[in-house]
Amino acid sequence: MDLDHGRISFHNKEVLVRIKRFQRWVGCVAVAAGLLLAVAPVAADEGMWTFDNVPVKQLQKKYGFTPTKEWLEHIRLASVRFNDGGSGSFISPDGLVLTNHHVARGQLQKVSTAEHNYVQTGFLAKTEADEIKCPDLELNVLMSMENVTSKVEAAVKPGMTDEQALKARKAIIAKIERDSLKKTGLRSNVITLYHGGEYWLYRYKKYTDVRIVFAPEVNAAYFGGDPDNFTYPRYDLDMAIFRVYENGKPIKSPAYLKVNPNGPKPGDLVFVSGNPGSTDRLLTMSQLTMMRDYSYPLRLAYIRRMRKVLREYAKRGPEQAREANMMIFALSNGVKAMTGEYKGLKNPEIWHKLEQREARFRKLVAANPELQKKYGNAWSQIEKSEKILMTRFNQYAYRRVPGFRVPRMAVQIVQYIQETAKPDAIRLPGYHDAQLPSLRFRLFSPAPVYPGMEEVLLADQLKQLKQKLGPNDPFVKAALGNADPTALAHQLISETKVVNPAFRKKLVNGGAAALAKCHDPLIVWAEKLAPILHQMHDWYQNNVESIVTPAEEKIGKARFAVYGKSVYPDATFTLRLTFGTVKGYPMNGTEAPPYTTMYGLFDRAYSFGLKYPFLPPKRFFEHEKDLKLSTPFDFVSTCDIIGGNSGSPVINRKGELVGLIFDGNIESLVGRFIYDDTASRAVAVDSAAIIEAMRKVYPTQFLVNEILGTHAK
Amino acid sequence: MDLDHGRISFHNKEVLVRIKRFQRWVGCVAVAAGLLLAVAPVAADEGMWTFDNVPVKQLQKKYGFTPTKEWLEHIRLASVRFNDGGSGSFISPDGLVLTNHHVARGQLQKVSTAEHNYVQTGFLAKTEADEIKCPDLELNVLMSMENVTSKVEAAVKPGMTDEQALKARKAIIAKIERDSLKKTGLRSNVITLYHGGEYWLYRYKKYTDVRIVFAPEVNAAYFGGDPDNFTYPRYDLDMAIFRVYENGKPIKSPAYLKVNPNGPKPGDLVFVSGNPGSTDRLLTMSQLTMMRDYSYPLRLAYIRRMRKVLREYAKRGPEQAREANMMIFALSNGVKAMTGEYKGLKNPEIWHKLEQREARFRKLVAANPELQKKYGNAWSQIEKSEKILMTRFNQYAYRRVPGFRVPRMAVQIVQYIQETAKPDAIRLPGYHDAQLPSLRFRLFSPAPVYPGMEEVLLADQLKQLKQKLGPNDPFVKAALGNADPTALAHQLISETKVVNPAFRKKLVNGGAAALAKCHDPLIVWAEKLAPILHQMHDWYQNNVESIVTPAEEKIGKARFAVYGKSVYPDATFTLRLTFGTVKGYPMNGTEAPPYTTMYGLFDRAYSFGLKYPFLPPKRFFEHEKDLKLSTPFDFVSTCDIIGGNSGSPVINRKGELVGLIFDGNIESLVGRFIYDDTASRAVAVDSAAIIEAMRKVYPTQFLVNEILGTHAK
Repeated sequence: MDLDHGRISFHNKEVLVRIKRFQRWVGCVAVAAGLLLAVAPVAADEGMWTFDNVPVKQLQKKYGFTPTKEWLEHIRLASVRFNDGGSGSFISPDGLVLTNHHVARGQLQKVSTAEHNYVQTGFLAKTEADEIKCPDLELNVLMSMENVTSKVEAAVKPGMTDEQALKARKAIIAKIERDSLKKTGLRSNVITLYHGGEYWLYRYKKYTDVRIVFAPEVNAAYFGGDPDNFTYPRYDLDMAIFRVYENGKPIKSPAYLKVNPNGPKPGDLVFVSGNPGSTDRLLTMSQLTMMRDYSYPLRLAYIRRMRKVLREYAKRGPEQAREANMMIFALSNGVKAMTGEYKGLKNPEIWHKLEQREARFRKLVAANPELQKKYGNAWSQIEKSEKILMTRFNQYAYRRVPGFRVPRMAVQIVQYIQETAKPDAIRLPGYHDAQLPSLRFRLFSPAPVYPGMEEVLLADQLKQLKQKLGPNDPFVKAALGNADPTALAHQLISETKVVNPAFRKKLVNGGAAALAKCHDPLIVWAEKLAPILHQMHDWYQNNVESIVTPAEEKIGKARFAVYGKSVYPDATFTLRLTFGTVKGYPMNGTEAPPYTTMYGLFDRAYSFGLKYPFLPPKRFFEHEKDLKLSTPFDFVSTCDIIGGNSGSPVINRKGELVGLIFDGNIESLVGRFIYDDTASRAVAVDSAAIIEAMRKVYPTQFLVNEILGTHAK
Repeated sequence: MDLDHGRISFHNKEVLVRIKRFQRWVGCVAVAAGLLLAVAPVAADEGMWTFDNVPVKQLQKKYGFTPTKEWLEHIRLASVRFNDGGSGSFISPDGLVLTNHHVARGQLQKVSTAEHNYVQTGFLAKTEADEIKCPDLELNVLMSMENVTSKVEAAVKPGMTDEQALKARKAIIAKIERDSLKKTGLRSNVITLYHGGEYWLYRYKKYTDVRIVFAPEVNAAYFGGDPDNFTYPRYDLDMAIFRVYENGKPIKSPAYLKVNPNGPKPGDLVFVSGNPGSTDRLLTMSQLTMMRDYSYPLRLAYIRRMRKVLREYAKRGPEQAREANMMIFALSNGVKAMTGEYKGLKNPEIWHKLEQREARFRKLVAANPELQKKYGNAWSQIEKSEKILMTRFNQYAYRRVPGFRVPRMAVQIVQYIQETAKPDAIRLPGYHDAQLPSLRFRLFSPAPVYPGMEEVLLADQLKQLKQKLGPNDPFVKAALGNADPTALAHQLISETKVVNPAFRKKLVNGGAAALAKCHDPLIVWAEKLAPILHQMHDWYQNNVESIVTPAEEKIGKARFAVYGKSVYPDATFTLRLTFGTVKGYPMNGTEAPPYTTMYGLFDRAYSFGLKYPFLPPKRFFEHEKDLKLSTPFDFVSTCDIIGGNSGSPVINRKGELVGLIFDGNIESLVGRFIYDDTASRAVAVDSAAIIEAMRKVYPTQFLVNEILGTHAK
C-alpha cells in the first residue's frame, strides 16, 4: 500500500494535508524547491510522462505500439483523480469508478459509526438507493492542458528584485487560475512542471457527489497488513467501487475503460494512468543532502511519535481503536515508505549514482559558455538559500498548528476570513479564489471528528512544541503559554464548536464581523497563532523561496537546453502516463513471479496460523471450493509509479483495464530519487482476480454484469 | 539446497573432494589454518556443539529442557553421516535411513543409465528385493569419542623445530588412528577441534551396503531449482530413503528416530543432529583478508569456468545433459553459496563486526601478561606464513591434477602405490593406514564415468593450467608439454583403462611391480605429475603449515584460557548438535512465515506459468484433490547449520523426528563467518509433508506404515 499523494504516501486527506504541510517545513528547501536534474537519456521503462509529451517514438521502437491521439484522450478522460490522494478510473458508462480500498478507506471511515464499521465489514449497496454519499470526497477529471509558461514568465520584469519577481509570479498564477475558473467553471490549477521549467494550466471537471457502491473487508483488501505493505508477492483485493452523481443522478461516463476479465499476460506491454504524488529525482545534491541529514530523521521521529500517541489512545477501547486505526494505518504506511527512502539516501552506491547524475549534467552545462553564464550559478544559489534557512531551521520546522483536524480547521477559518479580505495576488497559498471551492468543500465536510483523539494529539504536540522551541518562543507562548498541555488540550477541544460543520460554515460566511464577535476558545486560540504563522511564511518566502524559485527555473531551463524534452517532470499529483512490462524480478536471492495466484492467499494465511493480519475474511474459506485457485491475484510490472498512483488503472494496448495499481514493492521505494527497473516494480490487483472474487466470493454478480456489459442495467 | 560438506557445500563426493582439494590450495592458509577466535559469550541459538560439550545449562535456562545422557546417546546413535557430504538418520528399526534427495542425488545418478534416469523419474522399490545397492556410498555412525589432546601434544618434544614438531604431530595422529582401527575394527579418525585446541579420536561404525528405497522426482525435491536454492519460502520435498544392509540383510537399528507425522509448531524448541562441513568463524582477520582478496575471487572464477564448460557439453544432446546435470547443479549451488559468503565478507558492517570480535579477544589475551607471553605472537606468525605462501601463491593454487574423476583416480593409484610403500607416519595425507579402507572403497567404485565429460573438463583445465602458470612451468610441461590440450585430453581419456574399476583394483593390488610394467597413457601421465605434486606438498608443509599449525594451537589455547569451553569449535564434518526455535523472520521488507503449506507449491508453480524449474511432477496435480493443502510443507528454525547438515533430522524434545534439514536461507550464508539469528534460518521439510505426500501422492503407504510402525512389517 501507499502509493499516495505526498511525500509519505498517504491517501487520506487529513493525513495527506498534514504531512504535505509537515514535509514542506521540514523537507524545507529540498521539498519546496526541488528542481530539474539530468536524467538525460531516460532508461528502460522509466518516466511519469505528461499527456502532452508521451514518448511515442520510444514506445514504437521498444514495443511496436503507437498510441494515437484518440487513444490518449480516451485514457485521460477515463482517468479520475481522488483528491484524498489517489487515482481511479471510470469502468462503466454509468459513472462507476474503480479505485483501491485504501484510497476509499478514509471515506469508509467517515461514513462508519461505532455500530457500522464498514472498514472492517466491507460495504455493498444492493441498489442505487443504498449507495452512500461520501462526506467530502472530490474527484477530478483532467479536461484540458494549456502551456502558460510564457505568460508566467512575462510577469517577471527586468530590474525586479528576487522578492518582487516571486510575488509577480504568484500573482499572475492566481490570476490565470481565477480567470479560467470564471470563464469555464472548471477547477483550474497552474501546475509547475520541471521545477519551473514549464507552467501549465490544467482544467478539471470536478465531482463532489460521489457514493460508495462496494468495498470488500479490510482483511481482504489489506491482507498481510503493515508487514506486507510495500512488498510483493501479495494477495490483496485492494479495490473499491464508487459511483459518481450529478444532480442526484448517476452521471453518464462515455469515456470509461472496459474491464478485461482475464488480466494481462507476463511480458505484456501495459500502461498506468494516474497521479503520482511527488518524486525528488531532479533535486540538487545539496537539497538531497538536506533531506538525508535533516528532513528524514526529523520527519520519521515526528510521525513515529504521532503513531505512538495514537496506539496508546487505541488501547482505551474498541471505539477508540476504530477511530484511530485509519491514522495508525496511514502513519505506519508513512514510516515504512520513508524508512525505505531514507535507507536509499544513506546507501553509498545510490548516493554515488546520484552524484554522478548531477556531475554529468553540470559538466554539460559548464561546457557551454552561454549556458554556464545564464544558469551556472543556480546550484550555489540553492546552497545559499539553504544556509539562510538553517539560521531559523527549528522555528521553521516546528511553528505549525499543533494537533489534528479540529485545531487546523480553526486556523483555516481564521486565515480564510483574513486572507479573502485581501487582493487575490497577495494571499497565503491555499486561499486564492480558484482554490476556495475545494477548500470550502473540505472545511464544511460533515465527516465525523473524534474529540478524544483530537485531544490526545493536541496535548502531545503542544508538549512537543515546547520541547523543541523552548517556553520562550513567541509561538509556544501563543499556543500554550504557561498552561499544562493536557489540560489546555482538554479545555480547547471539549469547549470548541469547531467540531460542528454548521458552526464552521456560519463563521466563515459571517466573515470578519462574525470572527470579531466569536469567543469560541479554539478560534480565539487560532487567532493568536495566525499572525506568527503568517510572519514565518513571509520570512520563508522573502528570504528562501525567492532565491530558490528562480534558481530552480534556471536549472529547469538548463535541463531543456541540454536534454530537450526527452525527459519528464518530477511528480506533482497531476495526471501522468507511464508504461512497462508485466515481469518478475530478482528478489532476496531468488525470483519473484510476474503474478501471484489465489492459492497463495491460502498459503500465506495458513503459514501464519490464520492470525491477523494474515486472516482473510470468512467468506473466502466458505467459497474456496467455488474459486479457481490458479486465478492470477496480484501482478507486477516495470511501470514507474509512486504514492498517488494508488487506484490507477493498468491498461493494455487495446485500452482495456487489466489491473489496478495498489502498491510499489520495497525495491521501488528508492524510486523517489532514482528509477532502476532491475527490481523496482508496481504492484497491481489483476482484473481476473477482481472479477473472480466478485463472482464467487461476494454477492456482486449484478455489478460484474454492469462492468462487463453482460447484462442490461 | 546446499547444506553440504565443504566450503562450497556439495554433497556429491566427486565434487566435494574436488572442491575441498581446490579450496585447500586456493583457500590457502585461510582454509588450512583457521583458528580459534573469540566468540566469547555465545549468543542466542548459536553453536554447532560437539556431543561431549552440549550447553546443557543454556538449554535449561532458555528452554527449560535438560537433555539427559541417554537422550543424547540415542540421538547420536540414530544420526548417520553420508560420506558423500551429507547427513541422515535412522527412521525405522530395520535400517531405513532418511536424508535429502540432493544428498542421494549423486548415487541416483550413478545407478541411472541413459534408459533409466532416476534423478528425473524418482525411484521406488516396491519390495526389499527391488532396493538398489549404491556403488560407493559409505555411511558412518559415531560410536565413541575420546579426547587425545594430551597424547598428541606429548609427541612434540622441547627443542624440536616447527617442521619436526609438525611431522611428529602427524605421525602420532596416524598411529592413534592405526592402533584404534586395529583394536576395534571401527573407522577411526583423529579430529582437530578448535583449530588445534583439542584433538579427539572419533570411532565410526561404517556401512557400505546401502540401498536406495525411495526418492521422489527431482522436480518435487528441488522445486524452484537454482533460483530458489538457498532461499525461503520453499516448497520442496527434498527427501530420499535408503536402507542399510550387512551381510546381505537389512540391519537392526534399535537407535532410530520415531517420525512424528504432525511436524513441529511455531515456537517449538528443536534440535538438529548432523555433520556441518566447515565454518570459518574462528579465523584471524589476516586469514579472512586472504580469503576475501584472493581465495573467493579465484575460486568463484574457477567453478564458473567449470560450469560453463559443462553447460556447453550438456548442449550436445540429452544423454550429455543427463551426465552433466548433477555437476552443473552442484557447481551452481557452489556459485550461489560462495557468492553469498563473498558478499558477506565484502559487507563493511559484517567486516566491522569481525574486526571487533578479534579485537576483543586479543585485548583479553594482551591484558594477561602470562597469556600474552605464551600466545601473543600467534597472529603475527600467521601473517608471516601468509607472506611466505604469497611468494609461490600461483604455483600453489594451480599445480593440481587437471580434469575430473578419471585423471584424479590415475594420480591416486600412483600415489597409493608410492605412499603405502613408506612408513605410515610420513605418507601424504589421505594415504595413512586408517584412511585406506575408505579410499579403496571409493577408488574401486563401479559407478559409471562419462568419458565425454571427462575429456572436455580435462581439456579445459589443461588450457587453464597453461594460461595461469605459463608454458615453462615444470608442472605444465609434465601435464601438457607442447601438446594441444584438446587433442591430449582426447588421447588420454579415450586410451586409458582407468575408467575400468577392475583395472584400477588390479593395478593398486599389484603394487610397485604392476605400476612399473603399466603403460596405460594416463597412468604414465600421472607418474609425471606425482613428484611435482609431492614437492609442492612438501614445500607447503615445511614452509607454511609448520608455522600455521602451532600458531593455531596457541590461539586455540588462548581461547580456552580466556573463554573456557563455553564455546564450540568450527565445523569439521563431524557430528554436532545445534538447537533453536521454529520461527519466521524479517524478509525483504516483510515477514517470512515459520512454515509454508502445500497451497504454496501450487501458487508458485502457477505464478511462473507451470514452467521448469517451477513445475511439480504431474502426480501432484493428479492428487491435488486428495491433499490437505494446508499441510505444512517446509519450515524454518534458528538452528545454526551449514553445508554438510543436509539431510539432518530435526528433532523435538521427545526425540522424535519432526523435520528434515535441506537448506539454509540466503541470509544464513554469511553464517560461514558469523552467526546472527535475526534472519539466518535453517530450512527443513516438515515431517507432516513427508507423510502427507507419501500417503496421498506416492504409492508409498507401505513405507509410511513401516516408518510410523502402524503396520507389521
